[in-house]
Amino acid sequence: MSLNTLILEPNSNSQVRQEEVLVTGQPTTVILNEAIPRGANRLILSTEGEIVVQLPDGTEFAGEIILETIPEQISLLARTYSVNLGDRLVTLEFGTENRAVRYTLELTAVRICLDVDANRDGLVDDDNPRKKDWQWGSEGQGAIFMVNSDQDIDYSDGETNLQNRQIDGLLDLKDLALLIVRKTGFGDWPRGYELRLVVSESGRGRVRIFENLDTYSGRELIGPGHNEARIRIWDTRQDLVLALEGLHYRDRDFDGLVDISLIVERDGEPYHLDWVRLRVAPWIMTPNTLLPRVVYMAQTENNQTTIEAVRQVVGRSGTQLEEVSPELNLGDRWLQDELEIGYTQMPAHLQYVALESPRYRGLEDFPESLLGADFGYVTRGSIDARTRLDSFGNLEVSPPVTVNGRNYHLGRILYGDTDEVIPPAARRRFQPALRDFLRAQQVQAPVQLFSDWLNVGHIDEFLTFVPAPTPKGFKLVLASPRVCYQLFQELQAQGWGALGLREGKTLSGHSAAIAINEVLADEKLKASNDRFQQFIAQNRVILSRELGLVADDIIDLPMLFEGSIRRDGSIERADSFFPNMVNMIVLGSQLAIPKPFGPQLNDVCQLEAAVRSQLEPLSLTCHFIDDWDAYFRKFGELHCGTNVARQHFSRPWWESPQP
Amino acid sequence: MSLNTLILEPNSNSQVRQEEVLVTGQPTTVILNEAIPRGANRLILSTEGEIVVQLPDGTEFAGEIILETIPEQISLLARTYSVNLGDRLVTLEFGTENRAVRYTLELTAVRICLDVDANRDGLVDDDNPRKKDWQWGSEGQGAIFMVNSDQDIDYSDGETNLQNRQIDGLLDLKDLALLIVRKTGFGDWPRGYELRLVVSESGRGRVRIFENLDTYSGRELIGPGHNEARIRIWDTRQDLVLALEGLHYRDRDFDGLVDISLIVERDGEPYHLDWVRLRVAPWIMTPNTLLPRVVYMAQTENNQTTIEAVRQVVGRSGTQLEEVSPELNLGDRWLQDELEIGYTQMPAHLQYVALESPRYRGLEDFPESLLGADFGYVTRGSIDARTRLDSFGNLEVSPPVTVNGRNYHLGRILYGDTDEVIPPAARRRFQPALRDFLRAQQVQAPVQLFSDWLNVGHIDEFLTFVPAPTPKGFKLVLASPRVCYQLFQELQAQGWGALGLREGKTLSGHSAAIAINEVLADEKLKASNDRFQQFIAQNRVILSRELGLVADDIIDLPMLFEGSIRRDGSIERADSFFPNMVNMIVLGSQLAIPKPFGPQLNDVCQLEAAVRSQLEPLSLTCHFIDDWDAYFRKFGELHCGTNVARQHFSRPWWESPQP
Repeated sequence: MSLNTLILEPNSNSQVRQEEVLVTGQPTTVILNEAIPRGANRLILSTEGEIVVQLPDGTEFAGEIILETIPEQISLLARTYSVNLGDRLVTLEFGTENRAVRYTLELTAVRICLDVDANRDGLVDDDNPRKKDWQWGSEGQGAIFMVNSDQDIDYSDGETNLQNRQIDGLLDLKDLALLIVRKTGFGDWPRGYELRLVVSESGRGRVRIFENLDTYSGRELIGPGHNEARIRIWDTRQDLVLALEGLHYRDRDFDGLVDISLIVERDGEPYHLDWVRLRVAPWIMTPNTLLPRVVYMAQTENNQTTIEAVRQVVGRSGTQLEEVSPELNLGDRWLQDELEIGYTQMPAHLQYVALESPRYRGLEDFPESLLGADFGYVTRGSIDARTRLDSFGNLEVSPPVTVNGRNYHLGRILYGDTDEVIPPAARRRFQPALRDFLRAQQVQAPVQLFSDWLNVGHIDEFLTFVPAPTPKGFKLVLASPRVCYQLFQELQAQGWGALGLREGKTLSGHSAAIAINEVLADEKLKASNDRFQQFIAQNRVILSRELGLVADDIIDLPMLFEGSIRRDGSIERADSFFPNMVNMIVLGSQLAIPKPFGPQLNDVCQLEAAVRSQLEPLSLTCHFIDDWDAYFRKFGELHCGTNVARQHFSRPWWESPQP
Repeated sequence: MSLNTLILEPNSNSQVRQEEVLVTGQPTTVILNEAIPRGANRLILSTEGEIVVQLPDGTEFAGEIILETIPEQISLLARTYSVNLGDRLVTLEFGTENRAVRYTLELTAVRICLDVDANRDGLVDDDNPRKKDWQWGSEGQGAIFMVNSDQDIDYSDGETNLQNRQIDGLLDLKDLALLIVRKTGFGDWPRGYELRLVVSESGRGRVRIFENLDTYSGRELIGPGHNEARIRIWDTRQDLVLALEGLHYRDRDFDGLVDISLIVERDGEPYHLDWVRLRVAPWIMTPNTLLPRVVYMAQTENNQTTIEAVRQVVGRSGTQLEEVSPELNLGDRWLQDELEIGYTQMPAHLQYVALESPRYRGLEDFPESLLGADFGYVTRGSIDARTRLDSFGNLEVSPPVTVNGRNYHLGRILYGDTDEVIPPAARRRFQPALRDFLRAQQVQAPVQLFSDWLNVGHIDEFLTFVPAPTPKGFKLVLASPRVCYQLFQELQAQGWGALGLREGKTLSGHSAAIAINEVLADEKLKASNDRFQQFIAQNRVILSRELGLVADDIIDLPMLFEGSIRRDGSIERADSFFPNMVNMIVLGSQLAIPKPFGPQLNDVCQLEAAVRSQLEPLSLTCHFIDDWDAYFRKFGELHCGTNVARQHFSRPWWESPQP
């Protein structure tokens, strides 16, 4: 039967009472057909209480009316809810030649209203007319919920609030979106009517809804395995407040939208419904242009000097440095690779969330150790499918950009993948599960780059972003063999070809020193670098197109790679030839840059000088830090060996245009 | 001793170790004087760890320096917090002719930061530089807390969350403002140092602060009688979240601002402090231009017909009607007088709050019966000082107005008081305690009117506000004897002087009917009305000045009063001569107006016609309701007998200009 439709039930008695529910403000059809006694030729209709009858011809009335033609149906409308059970009466007296049959509809008017914070001001609205229509943008509307993956109570086993079927302490309530079943009126309904809360197909298993918020831990009303629940009518004498937590981010198997319906059922069939649409908040990454909060480094056997040097720069940036203990890092120093610290946000609440990579190395337990109130955890990808490209040195995000008129006000995610130039058998992928998760977040539309030409295979080996006093607010920084060759050629031309780089440093137990002349004479090195330069140029084209950059937005820092065949043995890939300056840590205006050990002229390292001349005019301060033994020799640099938790964007993600 | 100052403690040994705390980012003076050994002529200063020494000449260094002139003091600065106890070292080796005395300062650097939501976005900031400076306006800043007077758990005894020394269920946390002691770093400090949280003098007894929010009910850390508390250092290894509730609104004995300090104490003396300033949210009234949510009426012996008539209008306005049961009203029908339903608000949270009048009549228990989640309660004034003017028919609020360039975006409160024209012995006052409470809320700067000329003494007997499609958005409606006499004189001049008013109605057992001619011939009535008209005119002048109104903003509705000497027997005051139409209920565009029973010409009441002609052009719908027996004969009308809970303003109070 259609919604909001009642049938006047045929009865052989001459006095019939039928108890029903009317929803306030909702015209409800009453089908008379089946109850009209044979030979009836007159209908006396009368009402009591706040109720209006509408006849098929549009006539509206309250009180009494006598109809000589009996309509097949009438429509009823009550605008206010009942104070007592059945306090709205509609009497239908059918007259035939020899008798009268009198039906009395005893109606209880109830209000059905499910409310959420559709206008995104942090307060639950009062029947917002746009609550069913989720729209992006600063003028948009639609409620939002968060995945509740933090740990508001300190569990020893690393369990998050997601696993728990209760509300975990007072602070946990802040992580939940409120739903209110607005006072429906009288606390009793006629038999046969029930009120149910139902989660749409798309949301099943994706949300948990708690009731009993006047207690200390709530009670799970809806959750995985039970996607609808009866609401006790008695509870709706007052506004009934419920709280909803997300269990899953938007992903390839979940479009992020969940509809919740409040349904009046009559004899087990839907009779009336109100509903709301909510969207799960995305996981968001933070670019280098956001100020840092904490820098993490792992305490390992030989890196204490590097940590102390970084601590000086961290101090100058107004940030703090946290050391990850040996017990938590198990000798794994590559903090950049293990996790990406982002956040998720709903109106008036925010949670930092670590995305853990599927690399499964020594730091495996570190991301979960960060769990706490408003610090959550998520992971994607599988250990079986992992390659080096799944480490998060291969996952970055640009500052906010505008591309062909489209504003990405939270920037765009960048990750490295393989390319056709790599022989199929040697190709390594950024796991599709990770890629799809990132794409599904929508607001930082990911851009795929080519990083498989590098042995380690991470995009942070050839790019970074620094803040800049330009209209765009940043510059893209790329590693450039071409610029390095130019610099060395100029030095050679000026008679400095005998100057050495990597002086005083060792590799594999031998001196690493090498003269400019030797470098320039090495044709194999040149050929490799020419090839690598092409790959960087290929990425530059993608970056320029996808981030809307022009030549002036890009800085090239001198760098050399060397080709080597490692591990898989199949093709030559790139390793850094000297400490890779583009693998820097950007902390506000303070830059911690791997010390390149370039050729010294008048006690000035010519590689450092080249970098300073490009970055210092942007009001950036360059701190060159020796990471040779602790990081470079282990095929990484300062950026690889650190992780920066940054502040969130001040502008919320829901103000993004429709993705 | 000054803050952030240490003394190098004299010691006769040649090797001295002194353990101290440094606050990150805070230059700290070390006074050397007392420790300089006699005859010392050299100082070797050296540092370890992330710390900088500043000499009196401004020289800054880290590492080692040899000074031939010994300064009286030095300054130390650490920017990052310690990872271990005493991990920053400053060694001072004083040399004399024959010996060296070596002091080692073992310093533990800690971060001291107390955070609040100073930018009012619902999220606690990260060391907002403006957190100490509370400023009004849309560009202002400063944290806000609310008086937590609702009832998130259903107590049978009407107790609110204010009385309770714990957090009352999950929803109660929403009513509290969060404070965060940001991670201070290492979880241990040298002996002699402590961390304390202290409430400023002005805030003592005005706030309660809870800790242990990772539990289900928190623990009172600070409250009445204990205005400071020690923070366990161990707790500050992570951000320590605290929650603050207000216990008192701003009032004559409380300026509303509370400073909370986080103090490092050294041997019981303040050594360093960070602090924040918060303001208690005001109690706010809602004018007739805000949409209604619920209309309350009392079920009493003879008013069911009136209730049903009002219910029809309530339904048309999309609102609900709630009846107050006889058990809760004890025969007292004057809902307008018993309470005023307003609200209080902080960023991303809001609570409706009933202000109860000190009238102490049958409805006494009703306001507290409204208590619930986000529905609070407050009262002011005393039973001993009460007069009829303390009933809230005498308390209204204008729609938003701009007066001489000053924007009152939440309108202005209006209340009636006495005037010099009333003999001193007969004067009745609006209680100063009530008036001062209302003034102290600041954002709806109250305007005092003159209502003591009325027997009942309420401003709602001569004024109301209706929405209007004008730039101001409303019109002021005044009762006008002058307009009524004009109308009656015109009718008399047209030959209708014999028409009666109040026909079919009784007063004191007699017919109340009276002809226009009789009314106009009654010189005493005319004299009284001339006097009352003057009082209304006097109020009109005040209203025009204080609300910035011009003649076109005001509508005069016909009304007659009659003078009577009631109760106190001293002077003649005004009572309504027929049902007072200005005492209407305004529900959006629907007006429920007392039926005046004016002279009928061609079946049209000429008083109703006069009112329709003024209000209907404003797109308002007039519903005239017979309240003669149930209200008018008991010296009140529809407005006196109802109470309307309205929606809150969409614009928050803190965007008001500095009051």
